[in-house]
Amino acid sequence: MPDSPFRRLSHEVLVDNPWHRYCLDRYTQRDGSEGTYYFVDMPGSCAAIPVFEDGSTVLIECDRYLLGQKLWEFPIGGMKDGEEPLPVAQKELEEEAGLRATQWDFVGKFAPYKGVSTEICYFFRATDLTWVGQDLEQCESITVHRMTFAEARERLLTQELGDGQSLAGLALYERWLEGRKS
Amino acid sequence: MPDSPFRRLSHEVLVDNPWHRYCLDRYTQRDGSEGTYYFVDMPGSCAAIPVFEDGSTVLIECDRYLLGQKLWEFPIGGMKDGEEPLPVAQKELEEEAGLRATQWDFVGKFAPYKGVSTEICYFFRATDLTWVGQDLEQCESITVHRMTFAEARERLLTQELGDGQSLAGLALYERWLEGRKS
Repeated sequence: MPDSPFRRLSHEVLVDNPWHRYCLDRYTQRDGSEGTYYFVDMPGSCAAIPVFEDGSTVLIECDRYLLGQKLWEFPIGGMKDGEEPLPVAQKELEEEAGLRATQWDFVGKFAPYKGVSTEICYFFRATDLTWVGQDLEQCESITVHRMTFAEARERLLTQELGDGQSLAGLALYERWLEGRKS
Repeated sequence: MPDSPFRRLSHEVLVDNPWHRYCLDRYTQRDGSEGTYYFVDMPGSCAAIPVFEDGSTVLIECDRYLLGQKLWEFPIGGMKDGEEPLPVAQKELEEEAGLRATQWDFVGKFAPYKGVSTEICYFFRATDLTWVGQDLEQCESITVHRMTFAEARERLLTQELGDGQSLAGLALYERWLEGRKS
C-alpha cells in the first residue's frame, strides 16, 4: 500500500491455534499517532459451486455453532499455511458435499471480513461431478441437498440470516457467467 | 439450535478490546467428544446503500490495513454492545461518507464470517440524502465517490479483490428491489 497512511510498528501473535492466529499490531494512524489493531490472521478459505450437467447444484445445510442455527451454504473450508486454493476447494467439496469434480474454473476472490481478518475467500465452479460420499470431521454437522440453481439462489437470498460468503460468491459467479456470455 | 449436535461446555474471554472479544469455547462435537472453538464475539456491523433521487449512489474507497490495499465498499461500521442496527448505520453513513438520510429501509442481514465470528451484518437502503461532510477517525482513511448505481455495481463486482460484505449486501439489495416490484 505505497500511499497508505498506515505503517506497522510491531506485530505480536497472541494466540496460535490449528485454525488461525490471533494477533495484535501496533501501527501509525492517519495523523501519525499510534493505534492498536487486534485481528485474525489466516491464509484464506475456498468454496465450490458445483454445477451438474442438467444445471442443478448442491447446497449444504450446516449447523453453525457460533450462530446457534443452521445456514444454507455452498461447500467451503479453510486453508492452512502453504496450501493452494484449488486443492482445498477440491478437498472441501469432496468431504462436505461428497462430490468429486474433474473440471474447475476460478470465479473470483474477496475479503469476507476485511476489518478483522486477513482472510481471502476463493470461489470456484466445479463441473463434471461424481458422487463419492461425505467424509465429515466431528466438528462438522452438514446435510447435502441437490436442487435447481434457481432454487439454490432463492434459498441463499431469502434465508432469514444469510451466509455472507455464499452470497458474495453467488454475486461473483453470476458476474463471471455474464462475462463468459459476452 | 434444538437439534444441534453441539453443546457449549465452557466459555472464556481470552482478549477483550474496544472492538470485540476473542473467546475460547469448549463444546461437544458430533460424536460427543470435546472440541475447542476460538472465535471473535461482537454484536455486528451495519452498512448503508445510499441512493440519490437520480438513482446514483456513493461508494467509499477505503485503505484496509489488514489487506495492505484499498477496497471499494459501501459505508459500514461496527456495533458496540447494546447498540441497535439503524442508528449505527446512520452514524456510519454520516461519518464515513458525509451523508445524512431521512428515509431508511432494512434490506437484509447476513453472517459475514460464520466460521470465526458471531457478527451479524445489517444492510439498509438510505434515501432522501443531504451532504453533511465526513467525520473520520484517525484509524480510517476513506475517500467518497458518487457514481451511477450501474458503475458502483460494476466496481464492486470486478475489483480484483472483492469486499465480501458489500457483495453480499448488493445481492440482498437487488433481491429486495425485485421483491418490491412484484
